Amino acid sequence: MKKVIVFGAGLSATYLIHYLEQNASALEIELHVVDLNEDLLNEKCSSDKTMKHVQSIKNVEFVQDLVKGAALVVSLLPASLHLQIAQICLKTGVHLATASYLSEEMKALNLQVEEENLIFLNECGLDPGIDHMSAMKLLNEIRAEGGKILEFESFTGGLVAPDCEDNPWRYKFTWNPRNVVLAAQGGAVRFIHNGNYKYIPYHRVFRRTEIVEIEGYGKFEGYANRDSLKYRETYGLEDVQTMYRGTFRRPGFSRAWNCFVMLGATDDSYEMEQSEIMSYRDFINSFLPYHPSDSVELKLRQYLNIFQDDVDLWEKLEYFDIFSHKKIGLKNASPAQILQKILQEKWSLSDDDRDMIVMWHKVVYELKGEKKCKESSLVTEGKDRSETAMARTVGTPLGIACKLILQGKIDQRGCILPITEDFYQPILAELESWDINFKEKELSI
Amino acid sequence: MKKVIVFGAGLSATYLIHYLEQNASALEIELHVVDLNEDLLNEKCSSDKTMKHVQSIKNVEFVQDLVKGAALVVSLLPASLHLQIAQICLKTGVHLATASYLSEEMKALNLQVEEENLIFLNECGLDPGIDHMSAMKLLNEIRAEGGKILEFESFTGGLVAPDCEDNPWRYKFTWNPRNVVLAAQGGAVRFIHNGNYKYIPYHRVFRRTEIVEIEGYGKFEGYANRDSLKYRETYGLEDVQTMYRGTFRRPGFSRAWNCFVMLGATDDSYEMEQSEIMSYRDFINSFLPYHPSDSVELKLRQYLNIFQDDVDLWEKLEYFDIFSHKKIGLKNASPAQILQKILQEKWSLSDDDRDMIVMWHKVVYELKGEKKCKESSLVTEGKDRSETAMARTVGTPLGIACKLILQGKIDQRGCILPITEDFYQPILAELESWDINFKEKELSI
Repeated sequence: MKKVIVFGAGLSATYLIHYLEQNASALEIELHVVDLNEDLLNEKCSSDKTMKHVQSIKNVEFVQDLVKGAALVVSLLPASLHLQIAQICLKTGVHLATASYLSEEMKALNLQVEEENLIFLNECGLDPGIDHMSAMKLLNEIRAEGGKILEFESFTGGLVAPDCEDNPWRYKFTWNPRNVVLAAQGGAVRFIHNGNYKYIPYHRVFRRTEIVEIEGYGKFEGYANRDSLKYRETYGLEDVQTMYRGTFRRPGFSRAWNCFVMLGATDDSYEMEQSEIMSYRDFINSFLPYHPSDSVELKLRQYLNIFQDDVDLWEKLEYFDIFSHKKIGLKNASPAQILQKILQEKWSLSDDDRDMIVMWHKVVYELKGEKKCKESSLVTEGKDRSETAMARTVGTPLGIACKLILQGKIDQRGCILPITEDFYQPILAELESWDINFKEKELSI
Repeated sequence: MKKVIVFGAGLSATYLIHYLEQNASALEIELHVVDLNEDLLNEKCSSDKTMKHVQSIKNVEFVQDLVKGAALVVSLLPASLHLQIAQICLKTGVHLATASYLSEEMKALNLQVEEENLIFLNECGLDPGIDHMSAMKLLNEIRAEGGKILEFESFTGGLVAPDCEDNPWRYKFTWNPRNVVLAAQGGAVRFIHNGNYKYIPYHRVFRRTEIVEIEGYGKFEGYANRDSLKYRETYGLEDVQTMYRGTFRRPGFSRAWNCFVMLGATDDSYEMEQSEIMSYRDFINSFLPYHPSDSVELKLRQYLNIFQDDVDLWEKLEYFDIFSHKKIGLKNASPAQILQKILQEKWSLSDDDRDMIVMWHKVVYELKGEKKCKESSLVTEGKDRSETAMARTVGTPLGIACKLILQGKIDQRGCILPITEDFYQPILAELESWDINFKEKELSI
């Protein structure tokens, strides 16, 4: 029996643990799951054979003892804790897999990992993860035909299923709300468009969107991710003329969201005075010029240039009761923390809500002197509030990758991403049985 | 003879050294000036008796030997180097004076400085410096009458003299250009207006200005400083309903400057790709959406909503040749560095140019049940490009403060600001002979 250890039984662990339990006997593994929260462990582990450990990873001795002799470790802990696990894996000679971004610190271990003949797999969830795999499949197919890639665009969105879009934003939080509030912050957006490097400051990102239609699901709106150029070399697109990666929302979302950005309500860099006794209305007013008699509503319209007949936008803002006298009740909170609280009241999934993942790639290429265009898209919906499409699309690819590693089907060593055929072919193929299907289509240009 | 040591012979040292040399025999001082640059030392020191030291303050032994036994040290070095000097002063029991902001590190020495019976005077230049002194004089006069302060506003601007306002911005760099490009960055602006805390994000600061008229000099436009509340306790204004501190420019400046802010051209957080071979036009275009045929001019108008007949604004932008094919020629430069280079070409003082300092305070107060208002304003012009009003208003108050310390007229000890009568009365009185005069006037309300 090979020992496999999963650290963390949170949101993204649901499907991963389920997958490993299903495949446990075929793979001859003894599964161990470690989390501080006993209830989570009991909820997520359904097999009697799975060993549950209520433990903190701060208990280094426990972690070392457990990892020693294991065949594979999976870390679903917060990304900042991966390195500690990685170092123990390196010392004890155990493969490691995560769904998180490959950090600089992790990258720095690459040579050592190679020397120890180990696999440290990163970015093998949804985004990052399935985005890499489906993009590389599409790009490599075109290259195999002899095509030269000219443009590459890619968007992903974690949204709600169409029949659950029961608010004016057609959006709810399906993952970490804080990431949504802070989206696009922390530096200018960079991308390349027709050979020109382009930069967008934060306060303009949500006004530079692109509309994309996906058959059967209508229109989506994409805003740019921070660094679209990050994977240029990874994808072998050094000479590409356009490279743009972004996030999907429903049309109209970004323009309304930009109202919060323009106010400064998404700022996480300072604490507001008296935030505890402030009302929602006070919160909005604190970003508006003082006036002895004008209402907050009027000042907001005037400040942000929102016309009386711009009903769609106004309805979105009003939906959060931002003009009400409800108390915020958060001590020493930043604008972003307050906004998150206001949004969570309305944007939380109800018991009947189901989420939806949408991913879309577009490639323009040249084949035998002719310019061509291909799209690849994925739409998949969640089952309910706990068996979400997000958890499935994050956990399942990682589970399949674990299987491939345990079966010895991966020859690469070092700190790697799932961008090669040995990963993406079997993973994308098996994902189809999990209702994760890409549709490719050729477009006229 | 008392030894007085000045570290740094840069811009703000001109008048300080001059003042100390003039008063050297009356004060019985032996003046030492230390700078790395021999030419600067020769240029700034005009008395034979002044001892010039071409030395780096990194030479700790030299600094310690020189400071030992001195009566007073003045640091005009970059603010980050004050602490090193301060620690040597503390160890050797010597008073210290600077024109820089009182840093947290300096503040932390307060108890030790008090215990050693020393004065470490900070913020005794123009802004900070004269602003504190003139504000405290105005506020304390009102308090002495029995008035209760309700509102306090204060603006300062380093500008050019009216007859040198020969460009559409009516502005040139008269001090550190980098600070102008980065103005208002680094966190939201905070102030209080009629009892309401107000916050403005960076991209809105230059659109929330106030117009102020100063007799004989016309109108000025003020935008808010980062933290208007910083001196609330210092000034004894804990209960004030409105407190707002800002920077003066000529009307129309801020709206045009905001175009650069909206583009993202003032961002100093990343390096632009290929900045060396980029033209001014490419620089502007990199912030605008791609279009196969529209001109950069048209895209800029459309992006920033600049109407064809908004001639004043457009003239300001065109003034910098931003649509030209001139090369930038800066390697790995941030947008802010590139913008600074573009601006410096046009906004540098010519030989005949003279600068101008404008300061203005407004206080609303209640006296015997009646609401009243007082303004205090200063306008002073420079003599030429080297004897600037900026250098005079920074160096002279510090020089006078040195005299007061050397004469033993200051009883306070510790890390202090010149906000008490023992400083501001004699300093403001003597500044009048340096053409630094405040005019107070009562306004009807």
